Amino acid sequence: MSEYDVLCIGNAIVDIIAQADDAFLTENGIIKAAMNLIDADRANLLYERMGPAVEASGGSAGNTAAGIASFGGRVAYFGKVAEDQLGDIYYHDIRAQGVAFDTKPLKGLPPTARSMIFVTPDGERSMNTYLGACVELGPEDVEPEKARGAKVTYFEGYLWDPPRAKDAIRLAAKLAHEAGREVSMTLSDSFCVGRYREEFLDLMRSGTVDIVFANSHEIKSLYETDNFEEALEALRKDCRLAAVTRSEKGSVVVRGDETVTVKPTTIDQLVDTTGAGDLYAAGFLYGYTSGRSLAECGDLGSLAAGLVIQQIGPRPRQNLREEAEKAGLL
Amino acid sequence: MSEYDVLCIGNAIVDIIAQADDAFLTENGIIKAAMNLIDADRANLLYERMGPAVEASGGSAGNTAAGIASFGGRVAYFGKVAEDQLGDIYYHDIRAQGVAFDTKPLKGLPPTARSMIFVTPDGERSMNTYLGACVELGPEDVEPEKARGAKVTYFEGYLWDPPRAKDAIRLAAKLAHEAGREVSMTLSDSFCVGRYREEFLDLMRSGTVDIVFANSHEIKSLYETDNFEEALEALRKDCRLAAVTRSEKGSVVVRGDETVTVKPTTIDQLVDTTGAGDLYAAGFLYGYTSGRSLAECGDLGSLAAGLVIQQIGPRPRQNLREEAEKAGLL
Repeated sequence: MSEYDVLCIGNAIVDIIAQADDAFLTENGIIKAAMNLIDADRANLLYERMGPAVEASGGSAGNTAAGIASFGGRVAYFGKVAEDQLGDIYYHDIRAQGVAFDTKPLKGLPPTARSMIFVTPDGERSMNTYLGACVELGPEDVEPEKARGAKVTYFEGYLWDPPRAKDAIRLAAKLAHEAGREVSMTLSDSFCVGRYREEFLDLMRSGTVDIVFANSHEIKSLYETDNFEEALEALRKDCRLAAVTRSEKGSVVVRGDETVTVKPTTIDQLVDTTGAGDLYAAGFLYGYTSGRSLAECGDLGSLAAGLVIQQIGPRPRQNLREEAEKAGLL
Repeated sequence: MSEYDVLCIGNAIVDIIAQADDAFLTENGIIKAAMNLIDADRANLLYERMGPAVEASGGSAGNTAAGIASFGGRVAYFGKVAEDQLGDIYYHDIRAQGVAFDTKPLKGLPPTARSMIFVTPDGERSMNTYLGACVELGPEDVEPEKARGAKVTYFEGYLWDPPRAKDAIRLAAKLAHEAGREVSMTLSDSFCVGRYREEFLDLMRSGTVDIVFANSHEIKSLYETDNFEEALEALRKDCRLAAVTRSEKGSVVVRGDETVTVKPTTIDQLVDTTGAGDLYAAGFLYGYTSGRSLAECGDLGSLAAGLVIQQIGPRPRQNLREEAEKAGLL
């Protein structure tokens, strides 16, 4: 009997979301659709130039955790915030969603991480992340019972940016595997893949990671090819199970010789792509840990991703279990 | 030549917005559709019970200031936040909208004010406001040049809740009138009117306030009657100009013997009524200070109110000038 369906580990970040046009991105040297890492000085500069914003708890794996909980899954989360107002907000939101979150907050500086997200008229989001307190996440933050007690331990590739989070991941993965559990990661961002390509491949090839989530840009970056099919075939060999999202083309799931093509859900209006991949992983992992077929897992992922991109902010306001029931998926 | 069209003065509050059902309001003793004043202990209790939320700068007169600026008006704002993360957010958002906001922040405690807003499925909002740093707003925060230099000084009745803000208002009103300007207030909330009925009537009858904004509940509370027409006739005698909103019935503007009936704008979907009255005042005051007819002022108010209630949060994301141009109002 497992205590949790999924343990999610990630950078605990509060999103600061505003609208901007493409010219703003160009003028400010922001790579569109990417996660741009920034330091405190650049954070202050960009905030001065940013329009009126709204705030919402985010962080890739945090969004996934919230999504799984909204489906009714049992979820725990590890992530580092500081003891400050944004940290209070982060604790509140993820716990209010039903996620077990007990990582000790950092006393003093740096403050809780924030990501300034500029949403362009096409709905694409461009993130500018100041990691703040996230740089202090380390193996001492791994709660062994949670790592042993979750069916799947899931983490974000973004955790290779702060200095010691990767040590936390290696420890959590070891504890999970010793307990007979599975380990999963998302490749997070094509530029992040570019920074840590060899390490990510090693995580997969060494068996540290069993299940990989990615989008088409990320796997092409991972295998340094422009050919999606070629990247997919390489990925198929490098991990036991992979789910690759393709924006409006839906997603494809590969496991050994098996290939499952998943249709996207239809949407009324694309508002803000923030959280799309995170919520796809949420739906998929909820389905996977509740024993559903890969096709069903993919459909749950598409449903959740389709909902989050029709609103501003990274976590759907709807109850995902109710939405899945309405759609006939649960 | 005036330096500003409008000076807005109010409680500077960050909104924390979540969905809830009517049973939640009942169970927690929250008066629906009202502004419930709470202390720090109750704020903690309610936050523990609140679902996942999003944050946005709010405050009644702050929302009005942001709205006027979005129409292209020149606006200044007085309000007290603390030197903390929520205070930084407040400064950012209102300045990013183009509002001149220079009130010195409070060093140390209490922290920046927040209002926990529960939005029920009918779109109605019920606010629970912890005033925090707002209790420190006083006459020393009145920047005389701004009070003298604005065509209209506008303040919220809510300012009678903190202890010394009313002294700031009396000083600002005196400076404004000495400079030949006008002074305006919103009655804010029917329970707020209940708390300060005699003082609000005195502000109007003594000529401290020239222009009154209210909704039908507030004027009925002010004159302790269930009869809207009776309240409206009393209001007509007590101030030079009044604009009274009536939800889906639109609004009515009275000035001496003149009565202007304003239609509501049609909306697709009511999402969250937060900010409706504030944005009506924004549109009206933008029109008024740019020399438009009362009917045009009312239409601009209806437009802005109609937009803000179709989104979550108290300040419209759209550029109001562009929206008014599209609607043929500017």
